[in-house]
Amino acid sequence: MDRKDVGILAMDIYFPPSCVQQEALEAHDGASKGKYTIGLGQDCMAFCSEVEDVISMSLTVVNSLLKKYKIDPKLIGRLEVGSETVIDKSKSIKTWLMQIFEESDNTDIEGVDSSNACYGGTAALLNCVNWVESNSWDGRYGLVVCTDSAVYAEGPARPTGGAAAIAMLIGPNAPISFESKYRASHMAHVYDFYKPDLASEYPVVDGKLSQTCYLMALDSCYRQFCNKYEKIAGKQFSISDAEYFVFHSPYNKLVQKSFARLYYNDFMRNCSYVDDDAKEKLQSFSNLTGEESYQSRDLEKASQQVAKHLYGIKVQPTTLLPKQIGNMYTASLYAALASVLYNKHDSLNGQRIVMFSYGSGLTSTMFSLRLNNGQHPFSLSNIGSVLGVTEKLQSRHETLPEKFVETLKLMEHRYGAKDFETSSDTSLLQPGTFYLTKVDSMYRRFYSQKPAEEIGGGKTKCCNGFANGH
Amino acid sequence: MDRKDVGILAMDIYFPPSCVQQEALEAHDGASKGKYTIGLGQDCMAFCSEVEDVISMSLTVVNSLLKKYKIDPKLIGRLEVGSETVIDKSKSIKTWLMQIFEESDNTDIEGVDSSNACYGGTAALLNCVNWVESNSWDGRYGLVVCTDSAVYAEGPARPTGGAAAIAMLIGPNAPISFESKYRASHMAHVYDFYKPDLASEYPVVDGKLSQTCYLMALDSCYRQFCNKYEKIAGKQFSISDAEYFVFHSPYNKLVQKSFARLYYNDFMRNCSYVDDDAKEKLQSFSNLTGEESYQSRDLEKASQQVAKHLYGIKVQPTTLLPKQIGNMYTASLYAALASVLYNKHDSLNGQRIVMFSYGSGLTSTMFSLRLNNGQHPFSLSNIGSVLGVTEKLQSRHETLPEKFVETLKLMEHRYGAKDFETSSDTSLLQPGTFYLTKVDSMYRRFYSQKPAEEIGGGKTKCCNGFANGH
Repeated sequence: MDRKDVGILAMDIYFPPSCVQQEALEAHDGASKGKYTIGLGQDCMAFCSEVEDVISMSLTVVNSLLKKYKIDPKLIGRLEVGSETVIDKSKSIKTWLMQIFEESDNTDIEGVDSSNACYGGTAALLNCVNWVESNSWDGRYGLVVCTDSAVYAEGPARPTGGAAAIAMLIGPNAPISFESKYRASHMAHVYDFYKPDLASEYPVVDGKLSQTCYLMALDSCYRQFCNKYEKIAGKQFSISDAEYFVFHSPYNKLVQKSFARLYYNDFMRNCSYVDDDAKEKLQSFSNLTGEESYQSRDLEKASQQVAKHLYGIKVQPTTLLPKQIGNMYTASLYAALASVLYNKHDSLNGQRIVMFSYGSGLTSTMFSLRLNNGQHPFSLSNIGSVLGVTEKLQSRHETLPEKFVETLKLMEHRYGAKDFETSSDTSLLQPGTFYLTKVDSMYRRFYSQKPAEEIGGGKTKCCNGFANGH
Repeated sequence: MDRKDVGILAMDIYFPPSCVQQEALEAHDGASKGKYTIGLGQDCMAFCSEVEDVISMSLTVVNSLLKKYKIDPKLIGRLEVGSETVIDKSKSIKTWLMQIFEESDNTDIEGVDSSNACYGGTAALLNCVNWVESNSWDGRYGLVVCTDSAVYAEGPARPTGGAAAIAMLIGPNAPISFESKYRASHMAHVYDFYKPDLASEYPVVDGKLSQTCYLMALDSCYRQFCNKYEKIAGKQFSISDAEYFVFHSPYNKLVQKSFARLYYNDFMRNCSYVDDDAKEKLQSFSNLTGEESYQSRDLEKASQQVAKHLYGIKVQPTTLLPKQIGNMYTASLYAALASVLYNKHDSLNGQRIVMFSYGSGLTSTMFSLRLNNGQHPFSLSNIGSVLGVTEKLQSRHETLPEKFVETLKLMEHRYGAKDFETSSDTSLLQPGTFYLTKVDSMYRRFYSQKPAEEIGGGKTKCCNGFANGH
């Protein structure tokens, strides 16, 4: 069986129709003007209403991907999920998704859920690619799902929420393939962001520590990535060797800092593209210790300034969805990848994209993708049109901050609760979207699907069955 | 790089020193005599005291494996954990284990935690094997850790608890290698056992449904396993084609039923080894529907009777640790594998072991291992002696049921709590064991290591550092 160019064949994204403008949230929170829009670099934030959760979103996106790319569910041989939104501490989200495949009598599907903060989706993706390259591969497709709802307690972290689910089909001869040897990880034990209060959906966050950990992990991965590249390719790696850099995006400001940090690394490594003007501007920071360099505001400002032009070319096109949706945890990095695929699909042939995945706690990996136009339906242009980012963003419903806050209050009571029914209000949902109808006295969750347009005003389909404890 | 015979190179197990006899528990609970010992088939149950948890157990077993096999921590390129015992909903157990590797400046270690009930360890193991066989392999070892503490609310499920951590080193040229093509999974959406009450350590269990799901999953996996085998090997597969069958063991009685179920499958498939006497005894059950066959006590009895002799040969040697320790969730299947490796290491060369992994919710896989004596230190005989099962079992401390119940009561308050110190009583722990000393007001967990014997009465080593939020 052919195993060349294993990678991402197809992709789809789902995010909730409800969103709140960061500018409106600033005003509502009494924050200084620009604190969220410029300070964080965010435009808008999506959030789950009481009829949606990480399970419904992943049911929706898997169903949608299979339909839009006309994939027979029998052809899936592996399905894995990355998520840090825990609805059940034992039963994986993957098992809920099996409902889609049980209908086609396909239960021989490996894979479970991978978890470490925002990194779980990358773990799932790397696992799936490895499977296709291993002796265990049976010729079928892999399917990776990243699904998360990021919500924070009232306070400075609240505007860094978001929600989305992304599905990616994995196999050989992919338009987005892995350069598997160019990959470096940095993993360590830290308490920068974690969820030890099990009854609460909210994390414990040390924002400043988390940002430093992110940049330290970025440095460590980049250093090792460059070393490996140079060993294999026989020449130095610098940011001029990739057309795009895609970063995990808790908020856009950190992405700006991250790219500038890579530029600073390249300056310190004496990379040839760094011109005299930039050298002059960064010279005074060349003697900083590592720790000092993470704390220096002046370095931050100077490096962002010299990297600004390249940021516009190599990073800006990746930031569309993360700025519009917010932090999607495991889905954030892949929403950024989706953004550049959507924005640039007609010019990506032969190009390289470097990805940086970060999950607090911490786990991080830098890896490299190689693009080619591909063959329909697994072509970059088809992926771009299936993603339909503009239409999806335009069809959203802007919510007032009061309504957003009210929803989060309600969800504080609903999280981990049993024996309740939702409003089943699907007015904002697109046809074909799955939604939560109730959680019974045994905590069992019931979902329905809003009829797809082609079915017309038909009956709402229920997605349960054996699951109901028969 | 050589990639032949990828599989398990080395193995170690850790379980808590505290245990309670099932016979004593029967009396204490006022259960009928034999209810736990014969009804469940269990002898004894290990449990974590207040100074141990899934993190301390996995620190202990990883440290122990590296030391006993003299593996430089720098040589580990992937580390993943399977567990369903959630201490933090975002930060993976893997990140706590990174402390061991950060000391050696090795942070480039892929992998996170895999989760779906008792199946997470198998997912981690299969991922790790795939990695070694993939283009991403960098020549280093993989390390898989299964760690769980199984505790139940007062009631009929309580005697099915247990606790342990297992570590397995993964690489090529292994004495225990994967026959990767002989593998079948059955995954579906059910609520047989789950943990939706996030604040509680205890699961919601439907014991009867879970048993039926287990046997249905076993049938489905076995059917597909046989189909795949026949397609590749060109002949029928039956239980006579493997020397040992290792089952996930929530309690031994289900393992007895499972092997009998395979025998019944072989009878229905007309396998040649099924003799006339057995055929006669099972004939009256040949017209049962699937559903009827799961409910029939008579079939259960008859099939166990005809399979009894083969059970003694092919399964009994795998049951030592699960009967003595209890359900170890993700570690249960591998404790059963460790049992047969320990009991039979001098006669396993060239033999085949078929494994059945089950995790409620549900996910299950049947897969095949091929054994060879191997080369020291990665030899079956060395694995047997490192496991040191007899010594480990004999050095345990038998606890009265009252003390066991009292510990579980205390842990109900400790689960998910912050701002407390443990007794730090290490009197029962072996030298070198890690233990929990405190959880601070920010939920950060602090562990120490009981000095190893060779160090003498030296200082207790602390296992924290950057982690403490510096």
